[in-house]
Amino acid sequence: MIRIAIDCMGGDIGLPVTIPAARQFAQQHPDTRFLLVGDEARIRAMLDQHGRDSGDWCQILPASEVVLMDDSVEVALRRKKDSSMRVAAQAVKDGLADACISAGNTGAWMAITRYVLKTLDGIDRPAIATSIPNQTGGATTMLDLGANVDCTAEHLLQFAIMGAALAKTVDRREQPTIGLLNIGEEVIKGNEVVKQAAELLRASGLNFYGNVEGDDICKGTVDVIVCDGFVGNVVLKSLEGLARMVANMMRQEFKRDPLSLVAGALATPVLNRFRDKVDNRRYNGAALLGLRGIVIKSHGSADVYAFGCALKRAHEAVQNGLLSGTTSAIGHLRQSLQDAADQSAALSGTAGLAQSPVPRVGT
Amino acid sequence: MIRIAIDCMGGDIGLPVTIPAARQFAQQHPDTRFLLVGDEARIRAMLDQHGRDSGDWCQILPASEVVLMDDSVEVALRRKKDSSMRVAAQAVKDGLADACISAGNTGAWMAITRYVLKTLDGIDRPAIATSIPNQTGGATTMLDLGANVDCTAEHLLQFAIMGAALAKTVDRREQPTIGLLNIGEEVIKGNEVVKQAAELLRASGLNFYGNVEGDDICKGTVDVIVCDGFVGNVVLKSLEGLARMVANMMRQEFKRDPLSLVAGALATPVLNRFRDKVDNRRYNGAALLGLRGIVIKSHGSADVYAFGCALKRAHEAVQNGLLSGTTSAIGHLRQSLQDAADQSAALSGTAGLAQSPVPRVGT
Repeated sequence: MIRIAIDCMGGDIGLPVTIPAARQFAQQHPDTRFLLVGDEARIRAMLDQHGRDSGDWCQILPASEVVLMDDSVEVALRRKKDSSMRVAAQAVKDGLADACISAGNTGAWMAITRYVLKTLDGIDRPAIATSIPNQTGGATTMLDLGANVDCTAEHLLQFAIMGAALAKTVDRREQPTIGLLNIGEEVIKGNEVVKQAAELLRASGLNFYGNVEGDDICKGTVDVIVCDGFVGNVVLKSLEGLARMVANMMRQEFKRDPLSLVAGALATPVLNRFRDKVDNRRYNGAALLGLRGIVIKSHGSADVYAFGCALKRAHEAVQNGLLSGTTSAIGHLRQSLQDAADQSAALSGTAGLAQSPVPRVGT
Repeated sequence: MIRIAIDCMGGDIGLPVTIPAARQFAQQHPDTRFLLVGDEARIRAMLDQHGRDSGDWCQILPASEVVLMDDSVEVALRRKKDSSMRVAAQAVKDGLADACISAGNTGAWMAITRYVLKTLDGIDRPAIATSIPNQTGGATTMLDLGANVDCTAEHLLQFAIMGAALAKTVDRREQPTIGLLNIGEEVIKGNEVVKQAAELLRASGLNFYGNVEGDDICKGTVDVIVCDGFVGNVVLKSLEGLARMVANMMRQEFKRDPLSLVAGALATPVLNRFRDKVDNRRYNGAALLGLRGIVIKSHGSADVYAFGCALKRAHEAVQNGLLSGTTSAIGHLRQSLQDAADQSAALSGTAGLAQSPVPRVGT
């Protein structure tokens, strides 16, 4: 049985999206039980409206407050202690649910889940990861997307471990390749943090491909791309902006005159196939990695279909053991780095005295 | 008369692109004279092949060496002192040309032009700027795109001045709006450099819009977007990657079966209109700003049409006084910041003793 706590109030639309999506998902996945968190009366009303069925696919967990999209992290964390976000995170903490999900305010969701669940041993900072469709027909996992603006090389290494565990468990990549986002060699200066991170990654035992550039995201050169949260956030939003522009312009051109309308009607099946391939609703559901619990963030503007996709990611993360996968990857890494340190100390004949080059991965 | 020095040997294709593009441009712009820099015999042969005409539209400036795409900056700068890049830059330095252009190795072109021409007073570091088509039908000027990986707030301010001068002279925006690339407010931590840059920009007298996010590039929210070279380079390449993926996938879908082929044929005029709108060849020609001379970088893979667009940017930059525009903008800025400092000193009653908050803009 997989138990998922849903912040039913979150997102631009809230209940009319979260409840029908959960109900549909439960019908297709009878192994799932949902904890529906939020305003009890309104959840009941919505359930009645959408057909409660047998009712054993869900249980309501009341929460009297809602974190708004423009609430500050402080308000969300300190003044709304009975928010649907907080209660959903607490359900995971208390072992009532295996995962929690919200489509609400990202910063608040990040802060609340981090406060309630805490980070895993060996992880300094949680990171946000998502999948971006690429031209291989698959998707590239990218992180961090905005949780950490200033990162050290060690943080980037930790992101790589968490991203690899996600790609392995959710996208079923056996030995996911890791790329480090950097700029072309033709450019005069390199970035010190990225250079150091490359060294750590080379010694990590992870399947490190090397540096990748911006266009490798859509090429699908590697399974996982690691970068700091400033770069990741800007890149993700830039890509979303271009995708929206292309879709809008195409729509406009096909509506410009009667002949274009006819051409558009005839081309509809082709354009739909194309749209389905790059439909980023399919990839809705960013993972907040590095916490002692599985935490998913849906896009605020998600519709029922998109929210269902995010539920699927939560379900797969639980089913395929994302948490234990991440924990054991951290253990392996610590071992590889220790081995490398021992070896280098033995070679230099100073075993026992050598300054350990093992970066802080682990407690 | 506008005189442009062309590194005819640079780019993936070299002479078969640069010479025909120059000739076509000269036919359409009789006010232009080109200095064709490179291997004299090969340039002559290419000119004969493409019809030299009266011949007074161009003059050959011989250069015995060529900087290769994979030459290091050091090789380009120190070992190839008679390269076509070097001779083209020297022509600007010596007053033989008003602008120079190359489609070759970006790092080498940057280093050579900086070494030969030097930076303008008040500019610490040159920056690379380009225009990205946006959904208003115009384009967003973005800089830096990779010349400066680590930037201070003052560098970002300098980029804003240079970008505004470019948008004013080349894109004819009267009071170009400036946006500072940042991440959403929902994210936990801000970036210190960007926060400081915002303060400087607010005091600068420039038309500062405020922070913008990645999706504002394609929305066309502002005329000029400023960011450090790491972020700019990654974003630009990410957008190029997505654009290529969309074009490839669309082509594939329209070729999938006979019905799709028919739909594609009927939709061709619509798809072509769309393609023309977002055709980034139209926006070929990045500007290397902050130097004592107008320097343009064409895409290495530019065809004759795209190289002609880059020549047009060089022509417009000269015609509309980019250099004098930048210099006077630096002067104005220095004055605004000094006024602000004087005012704040007067208000606090410590004029003459106050630590000047004027950042280093100017010698």
